[in-house]
Amino acid sequence: MDEREALSRIAASLPDAGDDAAVVGSTVITTDMLHDRTDFPAGTTRYTAGWRAVGASLSDVAAMGADATAAVAVYADVEFDPATFEAFIDGAVDVCESVGARYVGGDLDQHTEFTTATTAIGETDAPVRRSGARPGETVCVTGTLGRSAAALELFEAEERLERANELFRFPPRVEAGRTLTAHATAMMDSSDGLARSLHQLAAASDVGVEIDRPAVPIDPAVDDVTDTPEDRWRAGTRFGEDFELVCTIPETALETAIDRCPVDLTRIGSVVPADRGVSVDGDPLPDRGYTHGDERA
Amino acid sequence: MDEREALSRIAASLPDAGDDAAVVGSTVITTDMLHDRTDFPAGTTRYTAGWRAVGASLSDVAAMGADATAAVAVYADVEFDPATFEAFIDGAVDVCESVGARYVGGDLDQHTEFTTATTAIGETDAPVRRSGARPGETVCVTGTLGRSAAALELFEAEERLERANELFRFPPRVEAGRTLTAHATAMMDSSDGLARSLHQLAAASDVGVEIDRPAVPIDPAVDDVTDTPEDRWRAGTRFGEDFELVCTIPETALETAIDRCPVDLTRIGSVVPADRGVSVDGDPLPDRGYTHGDERA
Repeated sequence: MDEREALSRIAASLPDAGDDAAVVGSTVITTDMLHDRTDFPAGTTRYTAGWRAVGASLSDVAAMGADATAAVAVYADVEFDPATFEAFIDGAVDVCESVGARYVGGDLDQHTEFTTATTAIGETDAPVRRSGARPGETVCVTGTLGRSAAALELFEAEERLERANELFRFPPRVEAGRTLTAHATAMMDSSDGLARSLHQLAAASDVGVEIDRPAVPIDPAVDDVTDTPEDRWRAGTRFGEDFELVCTIPETALETAIDRCPVDLTRIGSVVPADRGVSVDGDPLPDRGYTHGDERA
Repeated sequence: MDEREALSRIAASLPDAGDDAAVVGSTVITTDMLHDRTDFPAGTTRYTAGWRAVGASLSDVAAMGADATAAVAVYADVEFDPATFEAFIDGAVDVCESVGARYVGGDLDQHTEFTTATTAIGETDAPVRRSGARPGETVCVTGTLGRSAAALELFEAEERLERANELFRFPPRVEAGRTLTAHATAMMDSSDGLARSLHQLAAASDVGVEIDRPAVPIDPAVDDVTDTPEDRWRAGTRFGEDFELVCTIPETALETAIDRCPVDLTRIGSVVPADRGVSVDGDPLPDRGYTHGDERA
């Protein structure tokens, strides 16, 4: 049983799990753990780690269409160093402030490797779940995909580390998420990669999805680190951890949604009946992506 | 810089940190990390681990006088085993249900040792902080102290493990905390031990505390595992992780508070001016206890 199967079992037994965040009254809550070995390649600053870890939870709040109100984090390290700890807190505070939320502290621990567990909460009276997509609607994505994949290439090559850190500090799409609640029928973030996200959304909504490959907005940073169109496509759609929003919007609402969304919103395909599966340019799109908790090989 | 100093620095820079939970509007939120090496002695079942880890966060919510609404947890293990995972979830669900909260899922991760990070949220319009105690008031504690110390002795002796697990599964004092909001001027939980908790409460309120040693309710389980009065006292007051509530209540409100509190509420001393420090039977009470994140030597 891998993480996805396990999460399915949790979802089956707990009515509130299985979306980007759990809904408790008008509050949404989500939690994540990230650690050195799997999530922070050598060269990642602690400021970036704080931003990215807390940002990942804020992204889940955004994916529910909620207003992010606060975040907390547990910070655990092998040895406690005040300077790196403060850099982490600075990153956590700054990413919260960037979306109008408050970083309100947390817990300290000692661990065998640098580990952080972050939790964010938000408020909404109308959470957007993964399950509301209907055939005939459009499939859209905010911003561009592949920033994290591009950053990882730079980290691994030990090149342009400042740029790599910048790419790793993604903007959580809280404002976009709030705007899209008025238009989107289903929404989630792309933290597992576009391909896997589309499969998850399709499964939750019991629909299929047809993607138009040329329409998928791949970040220009990906061009700098890939040589072939196939590498570029894979970096943009499979690597994940980009924390963009993937949503479905009725045709009639699309123009207004694009106008109002504070970041680029791109139509990348259409919702189709479930029996047509998830495809790109007519070929099946494999359900492959980043499984959180796996080590990057 | 140890954890306490680091937390002081966080508290100084973040207005919401430094209490048992952070207050965001009418919501309180708290997060903790526990792991195998430091928090779960050999013999602790995963059911007990789930109960205890989530219970620790619920206890922080209780210490604010809030109504616990929900909890989430990250579950990380060296190898994923469905049966132990489900036992953990069962414990998490059961401790939530015991206080009327909902366990709403979380995240899975892989780690170098079994690690869990739990977060609980609650609601209150009148949070009880650590800072409201005034000289002349009474100092009280719920329940009995030393259950966890007694459990640890059993775990270490590899004796009566079922009883040890039972002692480890403490009841979070959510209902008591809600009742005490009407009476208490300051409140916190005893997770760092009674001695350290009293020092923290005294410092936050800028007061001193005089404790009457015979009045401190030590759990009968401690008698089974200690030989001398000094060992008994140390187990009850220094070890901590008992998750009882320590609070201050004006003399005039004490009788009503005791009547209404759903668990035993015991007066153990009085609040005095700050220059008289923290003492027990006239002698200084050392600020010693359990520092979270330290390994148990």
